[in-house]
Amino acid sequence: MPFTLSPVRLDALLREDAPFGDMTTLALGIGDQPGRAMLRAGAAMTLCCVEEAEQLFLLAGCRGVSRFAASGCQLEAGADILLAEGPSAALHLAARTAQVLVEASSGVATRARRILKAARAGRPDIAVACTARHLPGTREVMLKAVMAAGCTPHRFGLSESMLVFARHRAFLGRVPPREWIARMRAAQPERRIVVAAESVDEAVLYAASGVDGVQLDHMAPEQVAEAVRAIAALDRRPSIAATGGIQEGNAAAYAAAGADVLVTSAPYSAPPIDVTVSIGPG
Amino acid sequence: MPFTLSPVRLDALLREDAPFGDMTTLALGIGDQPGRAMLRAGAAMTLCCVEEAEQLFLLAGCRGVSRFAASGCQLEAGADILLAEGPSAALHLAARTAQVLVEASSGVATRARRILKAARAGRPDIAVACTARHLPGTREVMLKAVMAAGCTPHRFGLSESMLVFARHRAFLGRVPPREWIARMRAAQPERRIVVAAESVDEAVLYAASGVDGVQLDHMAPEQVAEAVRAIAALDRRPSIAATGGIQEGNAAAYAAAGADVLVTSAPYSAPPIDVTVSIGPG
Amino acid sequence: MPFTLSPVRLDALLREDAPFGDMTTLALGIGDQPGRAMLRAGAAMTLCCVEEAEQLFLLAGCRGVSRFAASGCQLEAGADILLAEGPSAALHLAARTAQVLVEASSGVATRARRILKAARAGRPDIAVACTARHLPGTREVMLKAVMAAGCTPHRFGLSESMLVFARHRAFLGRVPPREWIARMRAAQPERRIVVAAESVDEAVLYAASGVDGVQLDHMAPEQVAEAVRAIAALDRRPSIAATGGIQEGNAAAYAAAGADVLVTSAPYSAPPIDVTVSIGPG
Amino acid sequence: MPFTLSPVRLDALLREDAPFGDMTTLALGIGDQPGRAMLRAGAAMTLCCVEEAEQLFLLAGCRGVSRFAASGCQLEAGADILLAEGPSAALHLAARTAQVLVEASSGVATRARRILKAARAGRPDIAVACTARHLPGTREVMLKAVMAAGCTPHRFGLSESMLVFARHRAFLGRVPPREWIARMRAAQPERRIVVAAESVDEAVLYAASGVDGVQLDHMAPEQVAEAVRAIAALDRRPSIAATGGIQEGNAAAYAAAGADVLVTSAPYSAPPIDVTVSIGPG
Amino acid sequence: MPFTLSPVRLDALLREDAPFGDMTTLALGIGDQPGRAMLRAGAAMTLCCVEEAEQLFLLAGCRGVSRFAASGCQLEAGADILLAEGPSAALHLAARTAQVLVEASSGVATRARRILKAARAGRPDIAVACTARHLPGTREVMLKAVMAAGCTPHRFGLSESMLVFARHRAFLGRVPPREWIARMRAAQPERRIVVAAESVDEAVLYAASGVDGVQLDHMAPEQVAEAVRAIAALDRRPSIAATGGIQEGNAAAYAAAGADVLVTSAPYSAPPIDVTVSIGPG
Amino acid sequence: MPFTLSPVRLDALLREDAPFGDMTTLALGIGDQPGRAMLRAGAAMTLCCVEEAEQLFLLAGCRGVSRFAASGCQLEAGADILLAEGPSAALHLAARTAQVLVEASSGVATRARRILKAARAGRPDIAVACTARHLPGTREVMLKAVMAAGCTPHRFGLSESMLVFARHRAFLGRVPPREWIARMRAAQPERRIVVAAESVDEAVLYAASGVDGVQLDHMAPEQVAEAVRAIAALDRRPSIAATGGIQEGNAAAYAAAGADVLVTSAPYSAPPIDVTVSIGPG
Repeated sequence: MPFTLSPVRLDALLREDAPFGDMTTLALGIGDQPGRAMLRAGAAMTLCCVEEAEQLFLLAGCRGVSRFAASGCQLEAGADILLAEGPSAALHLAARTAQVLVEASSGVATRARRILKAARAGRPDIAVACTARHLPGTREVMLKAVMAAGCTPHRFGLSESMLVFARHRAFLGRVPPREWIARMRAAQPERRIVVAAESVDEAVLYAASGVDGVQLDHMAPEQVAEAVRAIAALDRRPSIAATGGIQEGNAAAYAAAGADVLVTSAPYSAPPIDVTVSIGPG
Repeated sequence: MPFTLSPVRLDALLREDAPFGDMTTLALGIGDQPGRAMLRAGAAMTLCCVEEAEQLFLLAGCRGVSRFAASGCQLEAGADILLAEGPSAALHLAARTAQVLVEASSGVATRARRILKAARAGRPDIAVACTARHLPGTREVMLKAVMAAGCTPHRFGLSESMLVFARHRAFLGRVPPREWIARMRAAQPERRIVVAAESVDEAVLYAASGVDGVQLDHMAPEQVAEAVRAIAALDRRPSIAATGGIQEGNAAAYAAAGADVLVTSAPYSAPPIDVTVSIGPG
Repeated sequence: MPFTLSPVRLDALLREDAPFGDMTTLALGIGDQPGRAMLRAGAAMTLCCVEEAEQLFLLAGCRGVSRFAASGCQLEAGADILLAEGPSAALHLAARTAQVLVEASSGVATRARRILKAARAGRPDIAVACTARHLPGTREVMLKAVMAAGCTPHRFGLSESMLVFARHRAFLGRVPPREWIARMRAAQPERRIVVAAESVDEAVLYAASGVDGVQLDHMAPEQVAEAVRAIAALDRRPSIAATGGIQEGNAAAYAAAGADVLVTSAPYSAPPIDVTVSIGPG
Repeated sequence: MPFTLSPVRLDALLREDAPFGDMTTLALGIGDQPGRAMLRAGAAMTLCCVEEAEQLFLLAGCRGVSRFAASGCQLEAGADILLAEGPSAALHLAARTAQVLVEASSGVATRARRILKAARAGRPDIAVACTARHLPGTREVMLKAVMAAGCTPHRFGLSESMLVFARHRAFLGRVPPREWIARMRAAQPERRIVVAAESVDEAVLYAASGVDGVQLDHMAPEQVAEAVRAIAALDRRPSIAATGGIQEGNAAAYAAAGADVLVTSAPYSAPPIDVTVSIGPG
Repeated sequence: MPFTLSPVRLDALLREDAPFGDMTTLALGIGDQPGRAMLRAGAAMTLCCVEEAEQLFLLAGCRGVSRFAASGCQLEAGADILLAEGPSAALHLAARTAQVLVEASSGVATRARRILKAARAGRPDIAVACTARHLPGTREVMLKAVMAAGCTPHRFGLSESMLVFARHRAFLGRVPPREWIARMRAAQPERRIVVAAESVDEAVLYAASGVDGVQLDHMAPEQVAEAVRAIAALDRRPSIAATGGIQEGNAAAYAAAGADVLVTSAPYSAPPIDVTVSIGPG
Repeated sequence: MPFTLSPVRLDALLREDAPFGDMTTLALGIGDQPGRAMLRAGAAMTLCCVEEAEQLFLLAGCRGVSRFAASGCQLEAGADILLAEGPSAALHLAARTAQVLVEASSGVATRARRILKAARAGRPDIAVACTARHLPGTREVMLKAVMAAGCTPHRFGLSESMLVFARHRAFLGRVPPREWIARMRAAQPERRIVVAAESVDEAVLYAASGVDGVQLDHMAPEQVAEAVRAIAALDRRPSIAATGGIQEGNAAAYAAAGADVLVTSAPYSAPPIDVTVSIGPG
């Protein structure tokens, strides 16, 4: 796996849901009883954040956790995910945060993989990149989920790379693209210059002006194909990304149209996929 | 509005996306130019987090922000949301975080309001409560969104109240419900005792054993109606919540079945609703 | 125990007192010598935060800790609490924070238990709830202490439940209680509605208007008894809490007066109870 | 005033008590009504943390605050402290945290000033220093309170200075004091060396061995006087502090005995002093 | 300026140096006197972090600050930087943190600009990129300083881009470069692939194998020139960076050798440049 | 060692450099291969922060670390420092932060020790104290480095002790030193009073007025010697510190001049000392 959430962050997640323990367990007086919690896939899924679930049970005070799969695994409904053992209070404390984290992130991972699979049906070597347009504050989980699915993170944010939108060009007046692209190249020779284009003509103009990539925004697959052909005729072909409304249903068409990479935010609003949790004495 | 996210949290969201500013603006050399950013509804929506968007532009260094609506407002497509003025670098720095935050939270708010509206078509005085089963770490935004929609937060987490699931009862052996419910009452006389029931019989049993509420889990509307009737015959009627798979399409039926409150997590995976951002000199 | 403070928080407590180690140990050149630290009860006490003391010694670099009692235990003067072993620098680093944390929280727990005991002498099944009116920023320790004593936390804060004070009613003009109570019930059907009453008449009025609980503020035990009798005559009896100046000396009288729960903040200003720390080579 | 708590910390205090606003205000639907909150002294007090209270109301969204006194002021019962104006939701959100913070810290300040006053009745130029033995995590508030009272902070923690206790000397075997004191002096020539003494003989021994101060632990005033006389006969007199059980009742006797400074932790468990809060439309 | 440090971070810096205020000011009893603090350049410098200095004085409680220059300005010795007005306690509280922050960051900025100037004497359009190899925990200040100087940040860290070192290749066995470079391209089509080369032959091999950039590590300018010539003969020329020991004295030679960008960490250990602070009544 | 950085802080350092893992390792697909990382001294050095390096590898997920030296050790070029074993992804994730942290802090420690050694050539028992004038935000690492070198921290910040500069005296008008020094003594009897003097006359004046220490600012060694002689003639000799421009080249002269302690900030801008990292399968 590429990375795991830090224990500091995981501890904060536990406290968000249960700052003073599970009141139900406490009021029932069952907290000290030894028990086991089993998490299983409630449906087929691309699993995510199971490494974090393991840590959550340990942080909550469980004495042992067995993990049966890793982030990125493809599970069938009913497949075992994780078994935790410890006092009932620790099991109940961690179970919900662990469950909801795995459900939500696996939902994202599963949709991301379906889009990737659809795209590769259109062209086997296509890549799918997922944007940073998720709910602010959720970057780590969201990137882990799409990476677990085999997608790649699009740029991480505004500071990392250069992506020129119309809202930037509005400040450039009549300066020709070749000129401001050269200005950017001189300023940041080690960063890629990508420009968002809203028409085939724009795309060809920028491609011919020295960019590293063009990003075709909200064009139909046919337009993408046209832009790909036009740009292929240039001396030096920048990478071509298609973006805007790409999801499972149209990914194959966009891939077949010849884009190098499909850029999408669709996975982030995928519904969670059920994880069943059974807890009992043991 | 019930509450706003803290400036400390908002500052962290800005840094997540742009720890070192908007590199594109910087490389183009347009950061000092004065400009204006206008956010408008890209579709009909229940607006959310516009107070936070306002703060984000101010934190980024804008010199003024006009806000044209508040969280909870019902907007038509094209409606003005917010106008920010300041140097181009500040506008570009804040615009994306503000946009994505409003889009994601308004998506949640809009779906929550649609479920509420559907439920009230089934029975006008029904309440809709939204659970804490969202992606861990997003509690404040998610609760603000559902509250902006007119829904109410279900319990905030495990520490606040008592909600007995089968996974708790597994540790109680053959102790009869009346007994463990009395134990909880004695331990926590100021907290509500709610028990999750998976059948009508269970629901009636718990209702007759002294709980403050029963939560009917994954029952069909007909079963809910049956449980409501059976419980109405008791001396002291606990509140009845229906939960499990409730969404816009079935909310009216559940409401008509007589539950006091519908409990749902459905809004949390609503897709974002477009907010258009236009930035330019001015 | 209901919960333990997080390692992140405990680390911050250690750094508050000794950001750069124990300068005395360092200047004496004794930091690497192996030693043992023994904590013992300096007086009879209801012990608290010993689980956290254990973690503090481990965080500071001790190689082993034996704990001889748990939070909530009733200790005699001289009873062993905890033995830590490790290099002298680690022992001296952790000893004071551990000692002061146990002393302060055990002071709170001990007073809380004495109030509970006094109340139960007045009526054996009475509960004692402790408010959130402690020094801001100390919630976790304070709640752990009163819970260790067998008391229960009153509501956790302003967001969790509804408690109507005169300062709220000042904004309601002449709206009759039945009306605004119904408004609250509709808005928050899953949360208890409690109203603070400053006279017997007020208490009866609110009780008859549909609340879940009345909180009798600063009434004498006789008035509490009168309110209890009057409310018992109603069809549906809300819970009755007595609050305001309740402490060890008057708890029995209030309990005997018939309140369901006594609400108090008295434990929070209890003096610490001595814990002796002996450290030496070993 | 020496310092104020940071806005980051104050924001955290607000969120501790009301992470999602005041639910009562919200459910009553009175949040948008304009109002005023007045804080007054409920009893005579040495005021503390009123600067922080002012900030809390502003952070919560009040539009204006007038402050009528500063930390350290001596107030009579009924004296005005602070007036805040703004929407009812903001007033109710901030009022309790502000009130409890002022009550708790003013309780500490008031007791600290009474001890100082008692000590100065024993000798007018005596200083009273307050230790770092408060509940861990409360350093800023506690130090602000004792400084507001005119006392001085004893050392801030273990890293700042050298204070040799028996638990350190246990690792020194038979090394004579003059030798380990010289070792400390060489290691830390810019830091004071203070040694805790448990008898008059010990005190004289350390005083004659080159320390900057001796701290007389748990000695009666007569012993303190004896130690002061004996040490006065030395060539170079270190400062003499008396510590252990010092409070308002015995401070004069200890001061009269000739110690340079009295060291105490007694203020930290002082009960809060009532602050009345009245909120209403306006 | 590209960005400013967040107020949350600046507040932490103030607390690091003065958690409880300036004890000297307090003990002298001069804290309430109005005064002015003037910061001036003690030597010629490329100024940095003056925006942060302004915020520090405001956070400390000053009532007004005038700033006479911005980060990136070239100042002569004696030039005015900033004037703050407010109570003496606020001035003394902020002055040192502000001074040391400007001194340290301006030292880095000044050295960075000298290296840039030297490089551009070797070739006018060369860029200088500064690495992330500064003391961990100082990224924001260090990047702001080098960007203020006109240099650009090299990659921000390990997650952002791909830079293959020998320590990575050690795990690739005998897989030919063309193959693992293709593997990386497929995995991350939107990220640049750069490979570090330790000889001219290696550089040419990687350049011919499809990378976006080669980084020439610790080669002499002559070798750099040789690599540049060899690579120029290829069909598609990747960008060429020179790194390893580059500083003011050799930057011109490396620039003249034909590298596109010089990569250096030299600015980070630049000595601070004096800023004089005069504070007085006023 | 006096202290180690907290795991919370170390985790933040790792995330600063690699929030989402090492993208190079991931794209190459080598993350799961087992390997070993060896850190060795690239030059002679006084080692620092190796305990933190060990923790970084463990936090990143290595399964074992062997540490061959401790902070404060004097290493020859080529000496082994640390060996970590684990999956390649964990090794690459931690290696750079660990390397740069050790390099930077060992650079500081090495220069600090050279200054100490030079000073002791001037007078064997002299102490060297290092100020708090490092880049704000780096206190822990900087103090650990100078303490590892055998130097002592000068005061930790503005709150801890009293150090009167001209900028404080500017607010005292014509009050004679004896008077304001007595005022400080009364206010803070347990804290040292040190005054910065800019001439021999000033130094003698303050020394005769009751301070605990004088700090000779930017005087030549001859002036220091003159001040030392003049002050020696007084009844009660305060400690004498020399400060301002002290570094390796002049430390012996200042030490020979008779100051008790040399105060310097010179180590903080020392260049890092190379640590070689070799990583490979194993």
